[in-house]
Amino acid sequence: MLRSLRDKKHREALGLYAVEGEKAVTELLAAGHPFERIYATGAWTGRRTHELSDSEMARASHFPTPSPVLAVGRIRREPIAPGELDRGLTLALDGVQDPGNVGTILRIADWFGIDRVLLGEGCADLHSQKVIQASMGSFARVRAFEAPLARALAGVGVPVIGCALEGRDVHALPAISAAVIVVGSEGRGLSEGVMGLVSWTVTIPRHGAAESLNAAVAAAIVCDNIRRAG
Amino acid sequence: MLRSLRDKKHREALGLYAVEGEKAVTELLAAGHPFERIYATGAWTGRRTHELSDSEMARASHFPTPSPVLAVGRIRREPIAPGELDRGLTLALDGVQDPGNVGTILRIADWFGIDRVLLGEGCADLHSQKVIQASMGSFARVRAFEAPLARALAGVGVPVIGCALEGRDVHALPAISAAVIVVGSEGRGLSEGVMGLVSWTVTIPRHGAAESLNAAVAAAIVCDNIRRAG
Repeated sequence: MLRSLRDKKHREALGLYAVEGEKAVTELLAAGHPFERIYATGAWTGRRTHELSDSEMARASHFPTPSPVLAVGRIRREPIAPGELDRGLTLALDGVQDPGNVGTILRIADWFGIDRVLLGEGCADLHSQKVIQASMGSFARVRAFEAPLARALAGVGVPVIGCALEGRDVHALPAISAAVIVVGSEGRGLSEGVMGLVSWTVTIPRHGAAESLNAAVAAAIVCDNIRRAG
Repeated sequence: MLRSLRDKKHREALGLYAVEGEKAVTELLAAGHPFERIYATGAWTGRRTHELSDSEMARASHFPTPSPVLAVGRIRREPIAPGELDRGLTLALDGVQDPGNVGTILRIADWFGIDRVLLGEGCADLHSQKVIQASMGSFARVRAFEAPLARALAGVGVPVIGCALEGRDVHALPAISAAVIVVGSEGRGLSEGVMGLVSWTVTIPRHGAAESLNAAVAAAIVCDNIRRAG
């Protein structure tokens, strides 16, 4: 059962996800994250609910070199409440496929005090080990929702700002206290459907020759400039 | 021979490195990058110097699913010229181990027109496939040097600015036309040795609870603010 949680299909069927590794589990426990069960071998000095032998852990682990701890959490999905996106700042991800980028964006949202992250279609799975690990504990602190962006963004009462290669200069933003900021995919930027929903686009001035910036890097620069504008 | 280039030890012994994958090779060729040899199967429509059968490519490839093209370049290392770091902007990496971060930082340097990147000890190898791939072609455009930071930074005539969790507010930077900006490692930030060499530190205002930002993300935000300050 534990080993099967590496696959999204099995996570969804069981309503559970797994986090392995001393660093990742320690960070989440420190953030007060509720786990259903914490499986650990004798080598783990932290909290546990179930003791496993080294060979049992080797069978459960998703890693070639098993970690001494594997924590299992219950997937809880809240629907987005009506009007919720009209309050504060939302980072919305449009097809950000790389789990490292999604986790890094959770960490960025946590650093900049962004109110919530919304994962649209085609994003890496929020409950995958790689996303949780890359978030460096921010998975426990950031409110994250999964919903098709076309549905979630229809009728929002705040500006929907798309990050793009052309648009208003991010250095000239007005003070923004409530908005949805949409970050596009690594390969193709914002999807056509989402482009039809944005109020305006914002761009990061380029001084050299790179074609684009990494999705998480772009999100971070936009968040920094929004916080700087007040 | 080709397969052995996945290991740094063999790359150094042969003075060669390999890049696989249609996207990565296409980006580097588009940037005018000089390769010694381009091995390709019939499935590759671009430039080649040596035709390989599918089974020969499968033996040469570093990937479980071989790409139709594998390009080999010669490692060329220029020494840092005396006074070079005193001109323009340098991004110096202090133990940035993750190859994805090093590649992303090359891409950031390329976007922001940073004059050069300096890889100190303990960084991911500049000529590894993962670094080159994450740079999205910027490997071909950015001047990169490898040198111990203590030696390279001793006696520079411009400010050495360390990215840290405490320091001057990055939003209040003066205009800086020449400086070395040092980015620390993912786990421990700036090393003690390098901390002794920095003129001052700069920090990114935090609004939430994350303990830190990813090294590449922090580098990008500092570059954006330096370019913004003029």
